[in-house]
Amino acid sequence: MDITSDTHSQHISRQFNQELEELKTHLMTMGGLVENQVLEAVRALLEGDSRLAEKVRDRDRQVNDMQLKIDDECTRVLARRQPAASDLRLVLAVIRATADLERIGDEASKIARNALSLIESGTTVRGLVEVRHISEHVRKMLRDALTAFARFDTELALQVVREDEAVDDEYGSAMRSLMTFMMEDNRAIGPVLSVMWILRALERVGDHADNLAEYVIYLVKGLDIRHMDPDQIDEDALKRRG
Amino acid sequence: MDITSDTHSQHISRQFNQELEELKTHLMTMGGLVENQVLEAVRALLEGDSRLAEKVRDRDRQVNDMQLKIDDECTRVLARRQPAASDLRLVLAVIRATADLERIGDEASKIARNALSLIESGTTVRGLVEVRHISEHVRKMLRDALTAFARFDTELALQVVREDEAVDDEYGSAMRSLMTFMMEDNRAIGPVLSVMWILRALERVGDHADNLAEYVIYLVKGLDIRHMDPDQIDEDALKRRG
Repeated sequence: MDITSDTHSQHISRQFNQELEELKTHLMTMGGLVENQVLEAVRALLEGDSRLAEKVRDRDRQVNDMQLKIDDECTRVLARRQPAASDLRLVLAVIRATADLERIGDEASKIARNALSLIESGTTVRGLVEVRHISEHVRKMLRDALTAFARFDTELALQVVREDEAVDDEYGSAMRSLMTFMMEDNRAIGPVLSVMWILRALERVGDHADNLAEYVIYLVKGLDIRHMDPDQIDEDALKRRG
Repeated sequence: MDITSDTHSQHISRQFNQELEELKTHLMTMGGLVENQVLEAVRALLEGDSRLAEKVRDRDRQVNDMQLKIDDECTRVLARRQPAASDLRLVLAVIRATADLERIGDEASKIARNALSLIESGTTVRGLVEVRHISEHVRKMLRDALTAFARFDTELALQVVREDEAVDDEYGSAMRSLMTFMMEDNRAIGPVLSVMWILRALERVGDHADNLAEYVIYLVKGLDIRHMDPDQIDEDALKRRG
């Protein structure tokens, strides 16, 4: 065996692993940023803090820049390293994940803009209990999905996927209460609509967290569970693939 | 030069080109399907055809299956062919594009579900003129984005990107009229909300068409224009890259 070339290829492979690790690290940084965007957008609404809402809205540009940067890194890794099997799946999962994180950023920025118009209108806002509750739920989903990604933890990922249905139910019931508020008080229509858009944005955050969790299962198991009914995902089948 | 190996590599490269062509063809088929989903969902609403609405809703599964199939093909091409430069960009653009087409499918299915509940409620629906108008606009955007993809036509793609702002304006003004309807007539709140969700879904279709157009520019020029202000994309700069 040619020792020099062996050392060389070890060197290459170490570098390659380092690049993959960096991709993951950058994805986690982006995830942390959008998680914080959602947190602060909702806090701005609940505390009537228009400065904070503006900050969130303006910070969306940072999220977008991060997506472009990470996508660019992924393309370089694909072109230079031509990864196969699980390495290839990791890079593809990162590309897909940045798209979802970017959209979560968009939703945070929508929440901030609606919060801003609510604060400026100076009206009493109804439905805030629901907003707080659902926002806590989807932020937990997002945090868990990111943790699952960082640790390649498919069990945690599967939990996130199952959680999404609960959020959808909560969202449906919150929307029905808000409709009742509208019917009771015509003057509340504008503000209640803004709260509805905010709830909608939060529900979308949950959907994107769900997508992230699905990529984790794809990258670890090579199994694409998108569009599967969560109840039909057989845990034993997942284990056999592990 | 070794003629045998040259013939062999020509053979490989012909096969590879054929695989890339097939990816594009499958993407176009998926594009045609979701375009039709949007058309029929809106038609079901305008004509009060609940059967058609159900058909659209149930056909969403086909769209999802297509996404998984094309993504799987893309992963295989990446693993086996290890494409570089513009070939790599094409495969990545197809992966991104299927995600957007799948979401357009979701929006069509949301439109169908809202149409269904409107038809079943039997109430007179307001705002249909706006729905028709915006739906025609975003369907044109989608069609143009797909044509731009098929022909690698960056000028047409840039037109689509610019069109998206016009749709956003139309959407904003339609939403304001709908809010007025709500305030005038309390009993209309439920149906008007459904029409609002439909408009929202159409506006999202426009956003996804805009994304598709951006991928065309990325794949042809290697320039990522996502998150750029359409007015700041310098056509001369694009031409210099061509």
